[in-house]
Amino acid sequence: MTTTASISSQTYQSRQQRAAQLLAQTNIADALIVTPGATMRYFLGDEADTHERLSALIIPQSSDEQRPVHCQLITPAVDAGTLAALPGTADINIIGYTDDDHPHATVISLVQGEGHDPHHMRLAVDGHMPASHLLTLQNILGNRPQCIVAATPIVSQLTMLKDPAEITHLQTVGAAIDEVHALVPQLLQPGRTEAEVAAALHTEILNHGHTAVDFVIVGSGPNGANPHHEHSNRTLQTGEMVVVDIGGADSEGYRSDCTRTYIVGGADAARIDPEMDTMYEVLVSAQAAARQAAVPGARAKDVDDAARRVISDAGYGQFFVHRTGHGIGLSTHEEPFITSTNELVLEPGMAFSIEPGIYLPGRFGARIEDIVIISDDGHIVCNNQPRMLR
Amino acid sequence: MTTTASISSQTYQSRQQRAAQLLAQTNIADALIVTPGATMRYFLGDEADTHERLSALIIPQSSDEQRPVHCQLITPAVDAGTLAALPGTADINIIGYTDDDHPHATVISLVQGEGHDPHHMRLAVDGHMPASHLLTLQNILGNRPQCIVAATPIVSQLTMLKDPAEITHLQTVGAAIDEVHALVPQLLQPGRTEAEVAAALHTEILNHGHTAVDFVIVGSGPNGANPHHEHSNRTLQTGEMVVVDIGGADSEGYRSDCTRTYIVGGADAARIDPEMDTMYEVLVSAQAAARQAAVPGARAKDVDDAARRVISDAGYGQFFVHRTGHGIGLSTHEEPFITSTNELVLEPGMAFSIEPGIYLPGRFGARIEDIVIISDDGHIVCNNQPRMLR
Repeated sequence: MTTTASISSQTYQSRQQRAAQLLAQTNIADALIVTPGATMRYFLGDEADTHERLSALIIPQSSDEQRPVHCQLITPAVDAGTLAALPGTADINIIGYTDDDHPHATVISLVQGEGHDPHHMRLAVDGHMPASHLLTLQNILGNRPQCIVAATPIVSQLTMLKDPAEITHLQTVGAAIDEVHALVPQLLQPGRTEAEVAAALHTEILNHGHTAVDFVIVGSGPNGANPHHEHSNRTLQTGEMVVVDIGGADSEGYRSDCTRTYIVGGADAARIDPEMDTMYEVLVSAQAAARQAAVPGARAKDVDDAARRVISDAGYGQFFVHRTGHGIGLSTHEEPFITSTNELVLEPGMAFSIEPGIYLPGRFGARIEDIVIISDDGHIVCNNQPRMLR
Repeated sequence: MTTTASISSQTYQSRQQRAAQLLAQTNIADALIVTPGATMRYFLGDEADTHERLSALIIPQSSDEQRPVHCQLITPAVDAGTLAALPGTADINIIGYTDDDHPHATVISLVQGEGHDPHHMRLAVDGHMPASHLLTLQNILGNRPQCIVAATPIVSQLTMLKDPAEITHLQTVGAAIDEVHALVPQLLQPGRTEAEVAAALHTEILNHGHTAVDFVIVGSGPNGANPHHEHSNRTLQTGEMVVVDIGGADSEGYRSDCTRTYIVGGADAARIDPEMDTMYEVLVSAQAAARQAAVPGARAKDVDDAARRVISDAGYGQFFVHRTGHGIGLSTHEEPFITSTNELVLEPGMAFSIEPGIYLPGRFGARIEDIVIISDDGHIVCNNQPRMLR
């Protein structure tokens, strides 16, 4: 839980205030309950992982823009001191409990203290809250239908729109993962295994602007045709295609996620399969078309459609087996999801991946992925390493 | 998702079968629904992480011991191939879905296909299921009171009792973390920071029998008095006490977790605080008393009480601020919890930590932690590095 705060206490308070107001506007619940994870970090500055013990941030409804919202945080007593030092808890009442207490009942009585009768109380919970906590709260509330609802609409509406400090974080961590991709050609030596390359990439991610590694995918030859392959003991051979998809987190939790596709031995190496360049040129065009479609006012599905149309028109449609992208911020996968059915209208501040891929089973696969952030008149691209095979 | 299977397909099938029978015996629900995580690994051999996309293992009630239980697994189509290769899915029907499908509705219709009307269907869900999935399933079931209940009693009853292969895993990974502790005295050089020592320990954990690091705590001087301190840029000084609590996972997900307390400069170094040895001798006695109490037939609270009594009798009671231990297996913290109120009777196969600590705020702290496994006539200790200050 050690971070250097570049996001101010005022920003965290303003996030809490907006959540309270959204609760009042939508009236989906009397209070928002957040347990440890990315949403907790969004509101307080830390994920506040307290393992199986409950920690819960309580944000009550509030329509009063002038009066600061009265948030409370219940947490194991041993963690209270660490949480009190976070930038986001400056104005928050922290209640520590011991192993003999009943923290779930305390949550309900704290919301009751804000003027809500438990017999009619409605709570909105973060989508990541574990079932064990949710069901315990629901039991205390008498298992009334919809006494607990998903807070996803409110949380997504807030976290989807990145503020200037968040945009800087995503650009900086994007540049850091670019530095790691710049090292990949020299790591992809024939005779090395995928796992050896992955271990080296793990170290390089930590050496370049990240405090944690989220994932390292090295898919060579036929393994590249499985979009969810991680890495294996398969040995690289000259002229093979290799998908390298890597990402991590910076010191404040913002995520990188970038994919490039390489040829073992470099761009000049003789290809093992003559179709590689034909297919890859289609993918480059598709990814560029999707980026061009990522502008304010377009729908998420328009971005997906732009990539999918190029690939389908070239006859590879059945080999593009996933959505075009996912939102990113304090978690690697969040809203907005760039799918063929998402009607969401893109707005400035939305950050997401654009990552079409073409996968030829048993032969090879390719994917190109950049993080883009919608701006007032187009978008910012966070990843800028060359997209051509090399 | 690459593992070398030492746990057989038969073992996984037998775990699924016992869950189905426990469902029938307790009749808490018509089917058990498990999402990715440690419980999924217990039943299938992999955590099956599919991010925000639903993966769900469905284990229906079955009282027929002769007929194999008919389990089903719903998962994103792109992950179906990987999951089909797991040792635990040999007899399981895998249903892949695409981004345009409605997998939660599919879960309900699959349980319906086992003969359960959705208007009366009751599902038991793993305690780690995210709220987003739970609330979606609950909505489809009409938000009936207790249409979804916690599967914790059934899952804990199974996972608490380790079989011989699991006991071997915990002993092996325990010996591996012991090898890392053997290196700690030479790492604790005056002038180094806690963070530098932690980085070295991270590497050594991966070099010694682990495929993942779960946590590295290096608490020197006053930082050792905060039981949840991780590490900082504080510099070590000769004669200080340092708490080192480390753990990770082996290739099949079994966890290590071991704490030893050290003196910078070694056992012969002049102590910064004269009370260190007095206090530490109490802790050694308390930890030994708790181990002696860990026998079949004793209650979890008896083990806690054994440690707590020694510490309280010596006048340090107020400085032992947490429970004595937690269960361990495919997750670092699971049942049984060794608290002052847990009446659970210990049985052969139960594995848990014994980790009393004494924390003197602003001065120093100490903790000694071993993993023990209850045997037919006592217990096995998985950690065997010296417990004296060194």
